[in-house]
Amino acid sequence: MGQTEISSLGEFGLIDRLTGGLVPKHHSTSLGVGDDAAVLEYPAETDILVTTDMLLENVHFDLTYVPLKHLGYKAAVVNFSDIYAMNGVPRQITVSLGVSKRFTVEHMEELYAGIRLACEIYGVDIIGGDTCASHQGLVISITCIGEAGRGNAVRRSGAKPTDIICVSGDLGAAYMGLQLLEREKIASAGRKDFEPDFAGKEYIVERQLKPEARRDVVEALAKAGIKPTSMMDISDGLSSELLHICKQSGVGCRVYEERIPIDYQTALMAEELNMNLVTAALNGGEDYELLFTIPLSAHDKISELPGVREIGYITEESKGCALVGRDGQSEIPLRAQGWNPLAEN
Amino acid sequence: MGQTEISSLGEFGLIDRLTGGLVPKHHSTSLGVGDDAAVLEYPAETDILVTTDMLLENVHFDLTYVPLKHLGYKAAVVNFSDIYAMNGVPRQITVSLGVSKRFTVEHMEELYAGIRLACEIYGVDIIGGDTCASHQGLVISITCIGEAGRGNAVRRSGAKPTDIICVSGDLGAAYMGLQLLEREKIASAGRKDFEPDFAGKEYIVERQLKPEARRDVVEALAKAGIKPTSMMDISDGLSSELLHICKQSGVGCRVYEERIPIDYQTALMAEELNMNLVTAALNGGEDYELLFTIPLSAHDKISELPGVREIGYITEESKGCALVGRDGQSEIPLRAQGWNPLAEN
Repeated sequence: MGQTEISSLGEFGLIDRLTGGLVPKHHSTSLGVGDDAAVLEYPAETDILVTTDMLLENVHFDLTYVPLKHLGYKAAVVNFSDIYAMNGVPRQITVSLGVSKRFTVEHMEELYAGIRLACEIYGVDIIGGDTCASHQGLVISITCIGEAGRGNAVRRSGAKPTDIICVSGDLGAAYMGLQLLEREKIASAGRKDFEPDFAGKEYIVERQLKPEARRDVVEALAKAGIKPTSMMDISDGLSSELLHICKQSGVGCRVYEERIPIDYQTALMAEELNMNLVTAALNGGEDYELLFTIPLSAHDKISELPGVREIGYITEESKGCALVGRDGQSEIPLRAQGWNPLAEN
Repeated sequence: MGQTEISSLGEFGLIDRLTGGLVPKHHSTSLGVGDDAAVLEYPAETDILVTTDMLLENVHFDLTYVPLKHLGYKAAVVNFSDIYAMNGVPRQITVSLGVSKRFTVEHMEELYAGIRLACEIYGVDIIGGDTCASHQGLVISITCIGEAGRGNAVRRSGAKPTDIICVSGDLGAAYMGLQLLEREKIASAGRKDFEPDFAGKEYIVERQLKPEARRDVVEALAKAGIKPTSMMDISDGLSSELLHICKQSGVGCRVYEERIPIDYQTALMAEELNMNLVTAALNGGEDYELLFTIPLSAHDKISELPGVREIGYITEESKGCALVGRDGQSEIPLRAQGWNPLAEN
C-alpha cells in the first residue's frame, strides 16, 4: 500500500478523498457533507436524539494493537449504542478528526473504512465533520443523531420499585479482552517476530476491538410490545450504570450475583489472569450491552426474548443499591468503580 | 481563586460541576444533559441543521494569550456562525472536552463560563457532551444543531450568473489581530513584567479573541425579504470561500479590490507589520462574516442594509474567478491561500 502524506492533499483534499462517493441513504438526510451545515428533514412527531463521544489516542485506544479500521468501526458503533439506549434508531453522524503527521492518507482511509462499514451495517449517513492537524496523535469526535417516535425515547429516570432489571448479552468480556491485549503487547515488546496467541480467546478479543450496538434487542423489545421504564447502555460497567439509573429514578436495587451473564471465555481469562470475575463483570466497562428496567407485568414476555437476562429488581430508594451474593442472603453495596480516566490520570 | 485538581472530582463530578444549573430554555429542547442522548422536539416543516468544529491546543489556539473564557466563547460562536451561514438559527450544542492534567477544575469552569455566556447571548441550549482525560493539552469539539423553515436553508450551490456578491462587516481584522498577539507574545518571552500595548488596536484584538456570529445580518435579510441564492461564513478567507461557492454552484466571479471592506485598524496594523493589506483581507481567515449572493433584482433592497457591502458579481463558469484591480481593468485569478493547517503542518 502506498503511503501518501496528508500535507500533499491539504484539508479539503483529504476530506474529498475520505468522503468521496458518500451518498446519503436515509430519507431524513436532505443535505450531507460539503456545506456549512448538513440539513435534515425529520417527520413531525419525531423525538430527535443527539449524543456525542470523544476518543483520544493512548487514553481510549492504543494503536499498538487496535487496527485503524476496527477503531473507526468502534468509534461509530459506541455512538449508535447510545441512541439505541434511548430506544431510538441512529440516522446520521458527524465525524471530526485531529490527525498528527505520523498518519498518512492511507491510514485515514482505513479509519474511515471502518466508520463507513459501521454506517452501512447500521443504516447511518455520514453528514459532515471536521478534519484538522493535531500535534499529538489521533483525536476522534463523533456526534450521532437519531430518532424515536414522539414520547418513545426511554430515559434513565423512569425506573419504579418492583420493576425487573434486565441486561442483554454478557458482561466483562470486553474488559478481559483488553487485559489479554495488554498482556500480549508487553510480551511482544521488542520482539519483531512475536505472534500473539488468541486461540480460544477470539470472543473476548472481538468484544474489545469490534463491539456491536444492540439494535436487535431494541427491535425485539418493540416487537414484543415492551417499553422499558428506563434504559442505558453499559459503557462504564454494570455497577456504575445501575447507580446512574437508581440515582436519576430515585430508587434502589438488588442484583443477584448468580444472575449476571458471563461468557465462558471471560471466566477462563479471569482465572488465567487471577482476577476476580464478578468484579470484571460489574466494573469492566465497554460491554455496550443494554441495561434496562421493565414493569413486573412484562416478566412473561421478557423471558421469551433470547439474549436478555433478568438480573434483579428495583426497590424503594431507602433500601440502597446492593449485590446479593450466591448464598441468596449476603448483600454488598454496589459501588461505581467503573473506568474513570479523569480520576486515574 | 482556588485550584482544584480534576482528578479529585472524577469525570462525573466535573460534568456535574460544569453543567450544574443548566436549564434548557428553547422549547425544542425536551431533554438536556444527563442521559445517553439528548431529546429534541422540533416542529414539523423544520429543516434541522447540524455542524461541528474541533479545536486543538497549539493548532487552533495558543493559551499564552487566549483567555480560557474567550476561548470557550469563540468555540461556541464559530459553530453558531455556521448555522447562520445556512440562513438558520442555532438552538443546541454538545460540548466534548479533552483535558490534560495541567488544567484544574477552575480552568474548566472559566472555559465553560465562556461557552455558557455565548449560549445565553445567542439563545442556545447546552444539551450534552463528553469530558475525558487528554495526554496532550486541550481538545474542544462542539456540535451545533439549529433550524430553518422547511426549504429556507441556504446552501453554497445556488449562485447564478449576474447575482451580486455581498459580504457583511469587514475583513482581515481577525488575522491582523492574530499577528499582533503573536508579536506581543514574542516580545514578552521571558519578561515577567511585560505589558502588551494594544492601545488603538482593540478592535483587531477583539476580532481575533472574541468574534461574533452575524445573527443580525441573517435577521436583517429576512426582514428585508431577501433570500440569498448562496451563503457561507468566512472562516478560511474570502478567496477560499468564494471559490467554494463558485465550484459548488458551477459559476465564476469578479470581485472588485476597491470594494473589499477593511477597517482602519486593520490597515494600520498591516502597514506597521509591512504586510500586504489585500492579501490579509482575502486570505486572512477567522472573520466569521457572511459571504452571500443575491439576485440582481435585490440590489435596491440590499443597499439599504447597514454593514453589508456589494463586492462583485457572479459570472458564467467559463469566465473563471478573478479579483479586479483598483484600475478597474487588471484581473488576478483568485486563489485559495486560506489557512490550511493540514498543509502547513
